[in-house]
Amino acid sequence: MRNDVKDLSLSGIGAAKVEWAAKNMPVIYSIADRFGKEKPLDGVRISACLHVTAETANLMITLKRGGADPVLCASNPLSTQDDVAANLVREHNIPVFAIKGEDNKTYYDHLAAALDHEPQITMDDGADLVTGLLNERTELIEGIIGSTEETTTGVIRLKSMEKEGVLKFPVIAVNDSRTKHFFDNRYGTGQSTIDGILRSTNILLAGLNVVICGYGWCGRGLANAASGLNSHVIVVEVDPIRALEAVMDGYRVMPISQAAEIGDVFVTVTGNKSVIRKEHFTKMKNNAIIANSGHFNVELDLTSLEEITVKKRKMRGLVVEYELENGRRIDLLADGRLINLSAAEGHPAMVMDMSFANQALAAEFLVKNKGKLEHKVHVLPEEMDQEIARLKLKTMGIEIEDLTSEQAEYLSGWREGT
Amino acid sequence: MRNDVKDLSLSGIGAAKVEWAAKNMPVIYSIADRFGKEKPLDGVRISACLHVTAETANLMITLKRGGADPVLCASNPLSTQDDVAANLVREHNIPVFAIKGEDNKTYYDHLAAALDHEPQITMDDGADLVTGLLNERTELIEGIIGSTEETTTGVIRLKSMEKEGVLKFPVIAVNDSRTKHFFDNRYGTGQSTIDGILRSTNILLAGLNVVICGYGWCGRGLANAASGLNSHVIVVEVDPIRALEAVMDGYRVMPISQAAEIGDVFVTVTGNKSVIRKEHFTKMKNNAIIANSGHFNVELDLTSLEEITVKKRKMRGLVVEYELENGRRIDLLADGRLINLSAAEGHPAMVMDMSFANQALAAEFLVKNKGKLEHKVHVLPEEMDQEIARLKLKTMGIEIEDLTSEQAEYLSGWREGT
Amino acid sequence: MRNDVKDLSLSGIGAAKVEWAAKNMPVIYSIADRFGKEKPLDGVRISACLHVTAETANLMITLKRGGADPVLCASNPLSTQDDVAANLVREHNIPVFAIKGEDNKTYYDHLAAALDHEPQITMDDGADLVTGLLNERTELIEGIIGSTEETTTGVIRLKSMEKEGVLKFPVIAVNDSRTKHFFDNRYGTGQSTIDGILRSTNILLAGLNVVICGYGWCGRGLANAASGLNSHVIVVEVDPIRALEAVMDGYRVMPISQAAEIGDVFVTVTGNKSVIRKEHFTKMKNNAIIANSGHFNVELDLTSLEEITVKKRKMRGLVVEYELENGRRIDLLADGRLINLSAAEGHPAMVMDMSFANQALAAEFLVKNKGKLEHKVHVLPEEMDQEIARLKLKTMGIEIEDLTSEQAEYLSGWREGT
Amino acid sequence: MRNDVKDLSLSGIGAAKVEWAAKNMPVIYSIADRFGKEKPLDGVRISACLHVTAETANLMITLKRGGADPVLCASNPLSTQDDVAANLVREHNIPVFAIKGEDNKTYYDHLAAALDHEPQITMDDGADLVTGLLNERTELIEGIIGSTEETTTGVIRLKSMEKEGVLKFPVIAVNDSRTKHFFDNRYGTGQSTIDGILRSTNILLAGLNVVICGYGWCGRGLANAASGLNSHVIVVEVDPIRALEAVMDGYRVMPISQAAEIGDVFVTVTGNKSVIRKEHFTKMKNNAIIANSGHFNVELDLTSLEEITVKKRKMRGLVVEYELENGRRIDLLADGRLINLSAAEGHPAMVMDMSFANQALAAEFLVKNKGKLEHKVHVLPEEMDQEIARLKLKTMGIEIEDLTSEQAEYLSGWREGT
Repeated sequence: MRNDVKDLSLSGIGAAKVEWAAKNMPVIYSIADRFGKEKPLDGVRISACLHVTAETANLMITLKRGGADPVLCASNPLSTQDDVAANLVREHNIPVFAIKGEDNKTYYDHLAAALDHEPQITMDDGADLVTGLLNERTELIEGIIGSTEETTTGVIRLKSMEKEGVLKFPVIAVNDSRTKHFFDNRYGTGQSTIDGILRSTNILLAGLNVVICGYGWCGRGLANAASGLNSHVIVVEVDPIRALEAVMDGYRVMPISQAAEIGDVFVTVTGNKSVIRKEHFTKMKNNAIIANSGHFNVELDLTSLEEITVKKRKMRGLVVEYELENGRRIDLLADGRLINLSAAEGHPAMVMDMSFANQALAAEFLVKNKGKLEHKVHVLPEEMDQEIARLKLKTMGIEIEDLTSEQAEYLSGWREGT
Repeated sequence: MRNDVKDLSLSGIGAAKVEWAAKNMPVIYSIADRFGKEKPLDGVRISACLHVTAETANLMITLKRGGADPVLCASNPLSTQDDVAANLVREHNIPVFAIKGEDNKTYYDHLAAALDHEPQITMDDGADLVTGLLNERTELIEGIIGSTEETTTGVIRLKSMEKEGVLKFPVIAVNDSRTKHFFDNRYGTGQSTIDGILRSTNILLAGLNVVICGYGWCGRGLANAASGLNSHVIVVEVDPIRALEAVMDGYRVMPISQAAEIGDVFVTVTGNKSVIRKEHFTKMKNNAIIANSGHFNVELDLTSLEEITVKKRKMRGLVVEYELENGRRIDLLADGRLINLSAAEGHPAMVMDMSFANQALAAEFLVKNKGKLEHKVHVLPEEMDQEIARLKLKTMGIEIEDLTSEQAEYLSGWREGT
Repeated sequence: MRNDVKDLSLSGIGAAKVEWAAKNMPVIYSIADRFGKEKPLDGVRISACLHVTAETANLMITLKRGGADPVLCASNPLSTQDDVAANLVREHNIPVFAIKGEDNKTYYDHLAAALDHEPQITMDDGADLVTGLLNERTELIEGIIGSTEETTTGVIRLKSMEKEGVLKFPVIAVNDSRTKHFFDNRYGTGQSTIDGILRSTNILLAGLNVVICGYGWCGRGLANAASGLNSHVIVVEVDPIRALEAVMDGYRVMPISQAAEIGDVFVTVTGNKSVIRKEHFTKMKNNAIIANSGHFNVELDLTSLEEITVKKRKMRGLVVEYELENGRRIDLLADGRLINLSAAEGHPAMVMDMSFANQALAAEFLVKNKGKLEHKVHVLPEEMDQEIARLKLKTMGIEIEDLTSEQAEYLSGWREGT
Repeated sequence: MRNDVKDLSLSGIGAAKVEWAAKNMPVIYSIADRFGKEKPLDGVRISACLHVTAETANLMITLKRGGADPVLCASNPLSTQDDVAANLVREHNIPVFAIKGEDNKTYYDHLAAALDHEPQITMDDGADLVTGLLNERTELIEGIIGSTEETTTGVIRLKSMEKEGVLKFPVIAVNDSRTKHFFDNRYGTGQSTIDGILRSTNILLAGLNVVICGYGWCGRGLANAASGLNSHVIVVEVDPIRALEAVMDGYRVMPISQAAEIGDVFVTVTGNKSVIRKEHFTKMKNNAIIANSGHFNVELDLTSLEEITVKKRKMRGLVVEYELENGRRIDLLADGRLINLSAAEGHPAMVMDMSFANQALAAEFLVKNKGKLEHKVHVLPEEMDQEIARLKLKTMGIEIEDLTSEQAEYLSGWREGT
């Protein structure tokens, strides 16, 4: 079996990790149980380009239980857990192409290897496989049933493709399921970004000015977590409605040009590029800390940071100190890559459980509706979304209210009045 | 000029109230200034059925500045500020039909009087005028350019009408503008519901179990405010995704049948009916407090409460104690009507500023697009929504970030990658 | 029976208020039950100078149940509830000297009338009776068993007296019981100050810069409540340790000279005088709101505000707008008197229950230890404090953990180690 | 130079850690600068038994700058950073006796080695050196100027000694400085305990029931941090006043016997022993997680847990799964030792800066007052405490308010009145 992982002997350690994650993934396992009986993905070749973590391993296992023939490559060179990769290959016979810290060339070779699998379904975390299909491997397009996308960033790219008319197959925006982005982006990114900052720096967040660029679901989850640990949160946002929400949620709002002078810690979560630039780095206080928790490592304009740097040195595992021309020092975390995946362990299994339940159901949905879906970006049907939430609550032992029949009728009527 | 208000001599007191509200309504006044020059509503007859408060007065004044010929009746018999009504009539020559505490018959007479104005545009807070038009005054439908709707409850009713095909003109769901429901429903209802409970009871919220039925925008605003004052919040919700959000936001979630035994204070904000019923009242602790902050006073099933009551007495201005057959006492606030409007003063001017900016712009939009809009429930264009937020931030002295041209291009592209 | 209240016919309305408060005062009523049997205060003349509210009425009733002969005068001219005063006189035969809004002369006449009762115990809320005894009515000192004090402000004054050697009898600093200042000052003042601001202004607190001068127990309660409603809290404090706590609790800290330019709402809770002065008023934004929640109305330097004011007008019941020489307007709430008592109803019964349980037990303690206590400021014994908390928890249906005997022994030992 | 560390070649890595901590320790370095000039500890032998971390290294360096002759041993076998220990020995010539994971015998040998230094001052974190002096090394007592103590646990032990009359020299309870326990215990333990839980488990805290045993300063810091990350906090407490505070702060309170059935995560921070016992483990849900953040590892009764365990296995680095007789599994973190030090990096430098500033000043205070202090547990003078806070604020760029002379006079007077 073709694969490229660091060291197959790490499989045992990986097994414990996969099982640990499984403890917090009851929803995907209830789906796996059904898949095992119904085999809805029987024989379907799936190429997934996702963070190679213990949680993803449980998705791969679930797909295989449903009859699929999956392969996996890394959507980020730094997030791969080599022991989990080894475990998938050795114990589960699922080909993986991913090595933590792989260089750019290897990264693209691994993407190519995943496409060599001639997938019928692709699963993306940032639209890399779809981009590869549309740009380079057009011969494979014909065989594609559809694709799924995990991230906001990827969905934005895919909608641009749809708008330009270049999308050649249906895509399920898993990110847009409420059980995905309400939970994964908000609570998952919020906590894991804080976790990444703490693991890499061990600073005390209470009392610090934490500047958060971007007040989307990730940004507001992060703002909530940072202020929950008593940080003074400052939000930088381009959308006036979101900016006003941030103000009403209790946070200061200002442009980055002002925030640059005040912040102790800066985190970008915008999905955009060059959010913090040379003119901002120059204004920062001595010992300011900068990090990115957005999908791509272009949110911090590191090229311009290098231009004004006279000296660099490593302070801790994932901390590099930049000494600037102006004599001040800035500490960059994890090379500006996703801090939660690079310095911590990414989203906890508990949220990935729901995100990946959406992925598994999206794959099933694509197969069941093969040929019927427009070449657009779709969202999973509301009922599936609700069902995932229902399963999750059940596994937490939480009951909710039911509508009485009288109430259901009332809600659908309009004649009853004041 | 035909009108029906309590006492025109209250106009002076009303004037101070209207001016006080205006201090916190800079957005509507920037629109009023433009309207004064452009007269976009020149000669348009508008019948508005809204809460007759100081904030609404400022909307009426703005519409008139835009050239309109408005009349106003009450959307709720208990929320009318008689002095404000007097002031609109006497000082601004705007007919008003509203008396605080009016009985059911008068209420409907006032609705009829507003329709007698032969409106071209109607503005509703709960779809009462539209219902009147479709049910009884069908002769007026031909003259209608369109309608606007302020509330979630009204929008639900209007969408039912649209679905049934009975809607005969376009409606702008002002409620669905982000600058309306994100702010008014969340921060406005949150604070003003708390305010109504405190004014009517003077209880200490810290440490009490506050049961909130409904976790829509209003419910989550209320949960945030109650827990911000250190209450122990319990959420009752029928939608599993919302229920799961409540759990992840830090609140306990359970069915009302369980919550009934634990709660010290109960508030309904569901938009549904009979949310708390006989079997729940029976389980409540002695001295439990019940209130409603949803649009209609049907959320608490008071009919069934009466059935198990042996004695009632008034404890404070808006508190009636129900002594039950089981010997326990329950305190009902404001007869189960909207607590924030009955016991406090409704939403603060600061949020109504944005809601009513949407109303004013919706009226202008209907006139400009007369005859062009489908007979459906529409949302105001995104740009108008953004513009309102932009104006609001400006009046608060808050600057936000601008996209660079490079960033704008990046966001609309998809080819740039990892 | 000598007394001076507004209108005895208000007694009926007062009765309902007293009973409403009693619903949330189970601790004082468990003490009242014991007092009724044991009569520990038999024949003891007590003069109390407290806020004349429904909660205080329940304390007076409790003292009388214990055999005491109490009279009551007002500790603040604006906080008196005339109907409650009437009820105490007519229904409970307890002399009261208090009329809401009484002028300065009447206020002092009422203090004198309370001292004419020739008290053996005095109860103060700001040390007024003790000051009167020491300054003017020295002939009464001989008969004094002791005094009790409710407030931080009063305790500071009494400790100054103790230090100067002028205190001629023992004083129980009820304020310093943990079941008093941890709850009354923190949760009570926090919520009721917010309540007073909302009732007098109906502004939306979310998104506003709320400047809180003083970060003692009251100030931190207020900061918690304001930020719980999504205000942006700024703390002004002179003590560096408290200032640092405020920073670590998530609030901005700065001198009033800087905060003056940023604040939308200012509240003083320092126990000091002239906390906001002319040079600060001059810097404030147009429509800034100022209020005081400290004991005396000297925290805002209103004399200097008058000097720079060109025009004043009443905007709402308790709001006066000051138009300054610089053209900007400032809105003063409740004439700078205690906002929570003037504009709202003071502390909720639930906290007064514990504060007044301390008062009742302090009176009993003074009588039991007559002649044995030094002429100093004392704190109630820890066991009484704990017992009050225990009673409170019991009435809330909350159980706590008990130490095992093994644990109790462990805590008192030191030989058991790592 | 006698010493016992793991590997001196780790010194380089340790150097970067020590410098990284120094970035957040400006207060201790301002003291170090003064010490360098004044040499207040000239020739004084100091034996310190503290967590051997980068922050402690900066204290040792400061003491040496002050002229002292310090040695260091570990107060906890698991918290030693071997690279830091190496760096202190090699680069700073400070003897260290500490190896991470050392067994009990080595641990006590290291304590003995520290006492062999014949200290004049001892610094403790749990009173181990003092206990050693009083129990075994009585010949050294004569030479002791005094001791300092870092923890609540140690102070409790020392006060027991004082009460029994066995304390033979003065002790400074550094823990009781406000700049220590208000910050270190509350914000430091709060964040670092969360950090330890996340690093060892990567669970999502939002929505989980987190049971916190103990509501002292550490417990409330932890409750604040956990609820700040949207956990549902349940507090277990034996003191009724603290329990009531927890209720009023918004948390549920119940005995551990009830909480055991509900909790997802349990953390002990009581300073007591056997806080969670066999009967509680038996009731826990499957996959419950248990951890300790109190000083000693006796808070979880692990002996009784072993008795009902049928199988143990390691799930992750610091997670051991206990499979119970009843079929359910419990995950124990870090063997029940201090989770924040074992699984994370202990308190961030920013809080240790203040704690250790107190240690350095306490050493100076002992030397200056040699022979003058009673053999009791003392607290540092208020002015020193304030000065530390003042220095900290200054380094954060935060200005505070100053009392005017008029205000200072007002606060010390009592004659000015209402």
